[in-house]
Amino acid sequence: MEKVKIGLLGMGTVGSGVWKILKTNRDEIIRNCGYEIEVSKILVKDLGKQRDVDAPDELYTDDFEDILSDDGIDIVVEVMGGIEPAREYILKSMDAGKHVVSANKALIADHGKEIFKKSKSKGVMFLYEASVAGGIPVLSSIRESLAGNRVEEVMGIVNGTTNYILTKMAKEGVDFESVLKEAQDKGYAELDPTADVEGYDAAHKLTILGILSFGTDIELSSVYREGITNIQPIDIEYAKELGYAIKLLAIGKDRGGDIEMRVHPTFIPLEHPLASVGDVFNAVFLKGNAVGDLMFYGRGAGDMPTGSAVVGDIIDIVKNRNNIYYISNSRDEKLVKPMEETVCKYYIRIMVKDKPGVLGKIASKFGKNNVSLSSVIQKGRKTPTVSLVFITHNSREGNIQEAMEDILSIEEVVEIANLIRVENGVDE
Amino acid sequence: MEKVKIGLLGMGTVGSGVWKILKTNRDEIIRNCGYEIEVSKILVKDLGKQRDVDAPDELYTDDFEDILSDDGIDIVVEVMGGIEPAREYILKSMDAGKHVVSANKALIADHGKEIFKKSKSKGVMFLYEASVAGGIPVLSSIRESLAGNRVEEVMGIVNGTTNYILTKMAKEGVDFESVLKEAQDKGYAELDPTADVEGYDAAHKLTILGILSFGTDIELSSVYREGITNIQPIDIEYAKELGYAIKLLAIGKDRGGDIEMRVHPTFIPLEHPLASVGDVFNAVFLKGNAVGDLMFYGRGAGDMPTGSAVVGDIIDIVKNRNNIYYISNSRDEKLVKPMEETVCKYYIRIMVKDKPGVLGKIASKFGKNNVSLSSVIQKGRKTPTVSLVFITHNSREGNIQEAMEDILSIEEVVEIANLIRVENGVDE
Repeated sequence: MEKVKIGLLGMGTVGSGVWKILKTNRDEIIRNCGYEIEVSKILVKDLGKQRDVDAPDELYTDDFEDILSDDGIDIVVEVMGGIEPAREYILKSMDAGKHVVSANKALIADHGKEIFKKSKSKGVMFLYEASVAGGIPVLSSIRESLAGNRVEEVMGIVNGTTNYILTKMAKEGVDFESVLKEAQDKGYAELDPTADVEGYDAAHKLTILGILSFGTDIELSSVYREGITNIQPIDIEYAKELGYAIKLLAIGKDRGGDIEMRVHPTFIPLEHPLASVGDVFNAVFLKGNAVGDLMFYGRGAGDMPTGSAVVGDIIDIVKNRNNIYYISNSRDEKLVKPMEETVCKYYIRIMVKDKPGVLGKIASKFGKNNVSLSSVIQKGRKTPTVSLVFITHNSREGNIQEAMEDILSIEEVVEIANLIRVENGVDE
Repeated sequence: MEKVKIGLLGMGTVGSGVWKILKTNRDEIIRNCGYEIEVSKILVKDLGKQRDVDAPDELYTDDFEDILSDDGIDIVVEVMGGIEPAREYILKSMDAGKHVVSANKALIADHGKEIFKKSKSKGVMFLYEASVAGGIPVLSSIRESLAGNRVEEVMGIVNGTTNYILTKMAKEGVDFESVLKEAQDKGYAELDPTADVEGYDAAHKLTILGILSFGTDIELSSVYREGITNIQPIDIEYAKELGYAIKLLAIGKDRGGDIEMRVHPTFIPLEHPLASVGDVFNAVFLKGNAVGDLMFYGRGAGDMPTGSAVVGDIIDIVKNRNNIYYISNSRDEKLVKPMEETVCKYYIRIMVKDKPGVLGKIASKFGKNNVSLSSVIQKGRKTPTVSLVFITHNSREGNIQEAMEDILSIEEVVEIANLIRVENGVDE
């Protein structure tokens, strides 16, 4: 059996998943690509660390040069994470004529352009399916099966931690802080949860999805980002009552001109297939101008699901080494719209002092800013302050923000307690 | 711009979708594969027929030889349907060194082996993504992104007509016949609905899915098949009460040895992602031993969704003509288990005369046949006959069938009103 040798950079969660899959599914892999895939070196920081995989000691090295200078290694698999030295190692591997697979969303979102360019100039492949939604084959599907489509919209639940938290909040009516603590205890959330709960992780993934879906360069910094820390149980209750679930969505839209790129908590109709994606599961929903609505659902993290995507990429390279392709895809120049130019519906919850006439005052501020309302809910009259909930028709973000300023100037208004964007359902 | 020329066999729903997509998305397609894809001939039966696509008259022919003998045509796209002459044209095209794309599930399920063999012997590609679940890229995902997995289970809602009917029955509480009639009026169901409502169409698709997922030859005739004509509104009510939806599922399971292949109405837990797949939408749920649970959702029929899959295959061939691969996948020899050897849970509704002791008699017949019960529901005492509903624990189909015979011999038993298999939820 002919072998293809790979060098593994990192032996953490994903690395050990890759190791286990190559071993457990050896026969399937040989049948699917005609070669045995052998890990011939593993780069780690600490050679002495105890690991729960059965890789022989002699495979480990703490010197990247051992991998770089090994001409027998065709493919470098970067599963170490972080920006440096991952970026440096990937570029050097390409310089040495090695193909590269990476699962590193932060690196690709931030330095993808440089890496794509290098892979083209060196004639090597660079695949990164695992960087978005773990084991779900969404990037390859967009690239290949949907190659006859113009992708018009992509909406993803691409962060398992926040989806777990929001699902739990909705099921049990508990607040963000207590669920976060529980998620941390269970290992579903990091001790410093910022990257997840503030939407940075989702913004990385959306950048990668957007570049591929819309065929243009996108700067991570142009992606609007808002996390879930401000979601209250009462917002989830109102959402349910109005027929919605609240999900942290990564949304990209291309309506033929400039594109919208935004990560924020979103009201999504309960009958939308994204609404029932619960717990740590991920899903990516997209609209192609030929295929229509499509959704991919599965596990977005974990050693085996993420390892599955990495191994899929390795096999792809093994099969296509003599017919290589590039997926940089910056073919068009489309601009990301400033957030204030985006248009959608809004849920707005305002705390007011319960005095006669306040609803009229607020409504007139909306009107003044060209925001028209589709429904208003007022509840509870026993407390000095009450919640007023508004759902708007499609409105320009800029107008909404100006309306908020105007509304805050009303004497009886205590605060804008929340503002959450609303997406429509699936067309039938 | 270099061109790749294709010959289109058929200009019905799918053919016109392919034509429209190649025209509308010309720029995207050129960017994605580097070539312009041009339809250079179209085979139709009736040259005089009015068609609502804007293909020039001179492209049409009613003589297959015109396409076969045209050396400029690299790829033949079979979207005519039916077994003959589609089979003959595909084999002849391959003999002439042309690659073939087909959307013809019945042909592939029944004659796939012969076609796969021919494509290998002639060194041409044969792709058929559109044959299962229309625009949803499930075959290519199994073949490529999941190539590092052993697929253990595949469960699909792969027939839009029956899913529309079951969704409507569940929403409105109406019976099968009235919904079928409405579906026929709307054009969602054929005048002769047998292929859909009796599960033949789903069995074709399951055969194709199974061959690819489990890497073995599967005879269509070995697939167990049962339609939805016997589902009553009362079964759907009981399902809801017990926490289930009823879906026509195409189920394939490989537990390491022989495989199970069966199409039948199924109780599926409401929290399972397949349960909320409504209307004419399709979805394929699968379990890989690395990736875990995965689901693909989208439109399973229609000119544009199905055309999208066909065009995806054409682009795949254009990109891989110099690096061809085959997806016959009959690598292992696995046998399909006889239906009586399969194991699952069952919902059984029995009509009995409401006399004391009948429940005990039935329960003892279950016990005698090694079927243990997980719940029993009895309702309504105003009529001389009442429904008794049983949910079993995992049981062997053969034992269940023998228990049914025994139960029918009980004097107070009027009929076995329904027997529906039950699937478990997603592991969390």
